[in-house]
Amino acid sequence: MSIGFGVLGAGRIGQVHARAISGNADARLVAVADAVPAAAEALAARHGCAIRSLDQIEQASDIDAVVICTPTNTHCELIERFARARKAVFCEKPIDLNVDRVRTCLDTVAERQAPLMVGFNRRFDPSFLALRRALDDGAVGAVEMVHITSRDPAPPPATYIKSSGGIFRDMTIHDFDMARFLLGEEITAVTATASVLVDREIGALGDFDTASLLLETASGKQCIISNSRRATYGYDQRIEVHGSLGMIAAENQRPVMMEVATSSGFLRPPLHDFFMTRYDEAYANEIAAFIAALRDGTAMSPSGEDGLKALQLADAADLSARDRRRVRMAG
Amino acid sequence: MSIGFGVLGAGRIGQVHARAISGNADARLVAVADAVPAAAEALAARHGCAIRSLDQIEQASDIDAVVICTPTNTHCELIERFARARKAVFCEKPIDLNVDRVRTCLDTVAERQAPLMVGFNRRFDPSFLALRRALDDGAVGAVEMVHITSRDPAPPPATYIKSSGGIFRDMTIHDFDMARFLLGEEITAVTATASVLVDREIGALGDFDTASLLLETASGKQCIISNSRRATYGYDQRIEVHGSLGMIAAENQRPVMMEVATSSGFLRPPLHDFFMTRYDEAYANEIAAFIAALRDGTAMSPSGEDGLKALQLADAADLSARDRRRVRMAG
Amino acid sequence: MSIGFGVLGAGRIGQVHARAISGNADARLVAVADAVPAAAEALAARHGCAIRSLDQIEQASDIDAVVICTPTNTHCELIERFARARKAVFCEKPIDLNVDRVRTCLDTVAERQAPLMVGFNRRFDPSFLALRRALDDGAVGAVEMVHITSRDPAPPPATYIKSSGGIFRDMTIHDFDMARFLLGEEITAVTATASVLVDREIGALGDFDTASLLLETASGKQCIISNSRRATYGYDQRIEVHGSLGMIAAENQRPVMMEVATSSGFLRPPLHDFFMTRYDEAYANEIAAFIAALRDGTAMSPSGEDGLKALQLADAADLSARDRRRVRMAG
Amino acid sequence: MSIGFGVLGAGRIGQVHARAISGNADARLVAVADAVPAAAEALAARHGCAIRSLDQIEQASDIDAVVICTPTNTHCELIERFARARKAVFCEKPIDLNVDRVRTCLDTVAERQAPLMVGFNRRFDPSFLALRRALDDGAVGAVEMVHITSRDPAPPPATYIKSSGGIFRDMTIHDFDMARFLLGEEITAVTATASVLVDREIGALGDFDTASLLLETASGKQCIISNSRRATYGYDQRIEVHGSLGMIAAENQRPVMMEVATSSGFLRPPLHDFFMTRYDEAYANEIAAFIAALRDGTAMSPSGEDGLKALQLADAADLSARDRRRVRMAG
Repeated sequence: MSIGFGVLGAGRIGQVHARAISGNADARLVAVADAVPAAAEALAARHGCAIRSLDQIEQASDIDAVVICTPTNTHCELIERFARARKAVFCEKPIDLNVDRVRTCLDTVAERQAPLMVGFNRRFDPSFLALRRALDDGAVGAVEMVHITSRDPAPPPATYIKSSGGIFRDMTIHDFDMARFLLGEEITAVTATASVLVDREIGALGDFDTASLLLETASGKQCIISNSRRATYGYDQRIEVHGSLGMIAAENQRPVMMEVATSSGFLRPPLHDFFMTRYDEAYANEIAAFIAALRDGTAMSPSGEDGLKALQLADAADLSARDRRRVRMAG
Repeated sequence: MSIGFGVLGAGRIGQVHARAISGNADARLVAVADAVPAAAEALAARHGCAIRSLDQIEQASDIDAVVICTPTNTHCELIERFARARKAVFCEKPIDLNVDRVRTCLDTVAERQAPLMVGFNRRFDPSFLALRRALDDGAVGAVEMVHITSRDPAPPPATYIKSSGGIFRDMTIHDFDMARFLLGEEITAVTATASVLVDREIGALGDFDTASLLLETASGKQCIISNSRRATYGYDQRIEVHGSLGMIAAENQRPVMMEVATSSGFLRPPLHDFFMTRYDEAYANEIAAFIAALRDGTAMSPSGEDGLKALQLADAADLSARDRRRVRMAG
Repeated sequence: MSIGFGVLGAGRIGQVHARAISGNADARLVAVADAVPAAAEALAARHGCAIRSLDQIEQASDIDAVVICTPTNTHCELIERFARARKAVFCEKPIDLNVDRVRTCLDTVAERQAPLMVGFNRRFDPSFLALRRALDDGAVGAVEMVHITSRDPAPPPATYIKSSGGIFRDMTIHDFDMARFLLGEEITAVTATASVLVDREIGALGDFDTASLLLETASGKQCIISNSRRATYGYDQRIEVHGSLGMIAAENQRPVMMEVATSSGFLRPPLHDFFMTRYDEAYANEIAAFIAALRDGTAMSPSGEDGLKALQLADAADLSARDRRRVRMAG
Repeated sequence: MSIGFGVLGAGRIGQVHARAISGNADARLVAVADAVPAAAEALAARHGCAIRSLDQIEQASDIDAVVICTPTNTHCELIERFARARKAVFCEKPIDLNVDRVRTCLDTVAERQAPLMVGFNRRFDPSFLALRRALDDGAVGAVEMVHITSRDPAPPPATYIKSSGGIFRDMTIHDFDMARFLLGEEITAVTATASVLVDREIGALGDFDTASLLLETASGKQCIISNSRRATYGYDQRIEVHGSLGMIAAENQRPVMMEVATSSGFLRPPLHDFFMTRYDEAYANEIAAFIAALRDGTAMSPSGEDGLKALQLADAADLSARDRRRVRMAG
């Protein structure tokens, strides 16, 4: 029996998830909902599914799970609503921009014992998964240092920045989750330095576009994160883990494996445009993991708690960058 | 309006094409046929399509095109039958192992003006496509030398070898097509040297498992092909083109972009297992190209003629290897 | 006319410089001095040069320049002595472990207008040089972020650690110099986190073996440094610069360009053992630059001032790691 | 006791060997001879050695070995002369362009039991050496296929071509030696196809500038060689060996390990200009091997016989290309 899905929100990331669900043999994309009728229609037509209201999806007996792809400020309300309606919930990151609001939401989810998975897609990227498995297999011994390079191809528009919660809650939040995923130990201190080097408008909105972070754990493990809102050569996503027995590097995935050699040198094409193509396989794997956990009744991972912890780190980073000091995480 | 497809043959390559069709928004997988009921059932269940006989598919008004994935010795008959039934035909390579039989078949196709595309999937691999486009854009000037490395991970079973037509008609045929695709000029002479170095059973069947080929064109362009039925490190598929202004290399696509460094050195995982995963995107692009040509009424490429020419080169290579001499292609 | 050289100290780094001098057509290795007669004899025999005392070298009319390769605590005295003797001085890093002592020494050098170059060899590595030239040519626009990875293959013995001044003054000092070399702007704040993860004995001596650093400039440029006293896969020396128009990466130089592919994957050999082979060309270029500056009467670079600034950054890093806080550099 | 050397011929390759000898602690560059006084003077000044006539070198008691770097048509005479004078002889490839003349010369050498090494420098390249050692260690099992890519950056002048003996005797001869070195079995048949695609003047002189070759051994091993007189991206020198357990690839050595990423893609600089820099280490290793063999009284490798066999293969290739047929080597 396949799992019936409703996708809430037919924007860019909703489209990504709808495609992943359509391509999964254990899932049925039953319906899509969006406040903008044209968006819902386009997505429904693309995948041959129904258009329904939130109320209809809530009450639908053919829908077992919802994927929340709506604006961030609606996430908590929708998680609570569909948890109460006994639907399994997959919610895009971040759960909310406010830690207290996230806590309340997770309490409701816990009370209802509703399955909740948070959309940290990078955990499911084939190369990052392979890296994590190699770590688990002891390929490089004890983890000592993690380096995460994460740079977007180009800055988002000002309207996006305004409601994004800032670079740390919007962009670095993925890297905080990966850091926790790979360090295998909670982060105890955060130092962030952030600048406006790319886009003055971002600075005018009180946000940053370039950031470097230093994370520490109790046992002395160290993590470095490098973020920029602009990388001319494409969406730059790399991870390197140094351990007692060696190092593992997950290099950028390349759209084509081609090199052109001329008198100018050896030229390989730029990286992927952005996350929709770069993390194509990750999104498919992510939905498959959600379905597998539902089927097997195992714990959701990444969980709501993972979503909360990443947000707390983002808050600490923001404080660190603004106060220009090292910030310890509350015990 | 999407194109209705029938897939004939539910074996390994039939499954690959069924998945490509299912994932294509402009196509509907209507039915599958297979002499083995269990095979047809498994594929139909996987994609939620019907099971039909060849007769039913021939007469079906909801099926516009068929994809022939049956054993090679049935290809010509099926091409002719469905061409007569006014279906568009996509046929896996090779059309047949006999050049005369291919000619007769193509005559029928021509008479009926039926659209026929031959399954040389590699032309649609993203890296090889990019390479070809770079050539067309003049990135390395006039083509002078083409090098094709094509090695299977492991030899097929003896039963497969017996009906395969031999290494040149079964395996090198893909490389002959790529050579023609990239040289931009017909091949005028073939020298092949072939050995049995991998599997004595292959030798006992009168076939070879290791081959190196030298192809020439009238203007003096040169092409080298390197084939082996066994590559311990995975399915090895590379192309290099040297031209007057430089060189383009299409490197092996990698399942994951990861490297583990230890005191033993820097280790990257092996290549793809085989064509099903390696050419995943190529198969999707191939069906998309078939659909696009049907829609736009443009010429099919690769055509039946391309299939014939590749077979003629395979025949020449076989003769060359057996007679240990250079063989000129008939004008 | 070639430049006559005296090498002071016939240890590991003295041998490296002696070889570089011998291989330079514009230089003559005239004499070597060492407190240990056997060490001096071995080096003299190797290069066919004389063994002389410091006094003899000081007074020698056939020696134009000295290369100081003695223990760090003798550097300042020797610099001053040979500056007074009107010899050009090349001194290995660090000038001294004490900032005030360095200042006094540099004052003497300035007074005598003696040429002094400090041995930050990495500036002369062909790849790092090429990187710097590409920056100067504007290849990636304005520099925004610099990442330096610098890991030794294995921790030094405790006796070395004891007189080393600690990881920041002994090891990171090279990276501080490269950071200044590449950022093109003075560093205004340092945050270091350091741990003992490799060798408890290092911890027992009050030093660290693993460190991550975050450097900032007034205009908001950011620099990350990653240090470890142990990298199982060899001497890891990489630099990456991210700028407004792109990124330049200087990858590890490899002893051999070979890859072995088997069923285990694709294996490249480990990196260089250590600096003697890794920076072979850098040492040759360094001496050549020293000679060229002497000939042309141009300013020495890196200068004594560069040596002082790197030491000040090391002091700040040490303070940051011990006090667990961001440290601002004095204006 | 170091070995005293005389270098005969102060041209491009003479300069390369003089530098290698100067940098070798077990060798003394005693004298250089050249018919052009200015050439001899420049080299002598560069290395601080004497200028002597051939007669003087022949009679010199301080010269143990000569390195023959004169024009090819003088090689045999000089080998014979200095073998008779009881000097050890290192001769640049080819020994001569005529197989019979080479045989006579080698007879004289054998009669005098004179040590003779032929200058196939590539055997001593660190990467190719490592490749060969990995083969000897069984890293990829039994050798099945060898691919050699060898392309010069730009065609030589017509004057050079005229006395070169043609592409196979001048350029491919290195590849024939490497093929023998790596196949571990004599070559029994040669098929060459050659064209004039680069430089019409080369064609006018009856020579080729582009060639592809197929070599066979008795046991069925196969070797492919790809030659061009022009590679816009630099001196292209690669070897790949495919065996029963895997593949070893020796990639191009790079002058700098740098990559610049911009919106155009990832660009690495071109390869080395030509053999003088590319094979810098190989030439040093080659002289070291010559000296070691002299010291230890072991057999010279590559030997005069190796030089002869490479020439015979070149003759066969020339015949094959001109007659457009496969040529068997005489038993």
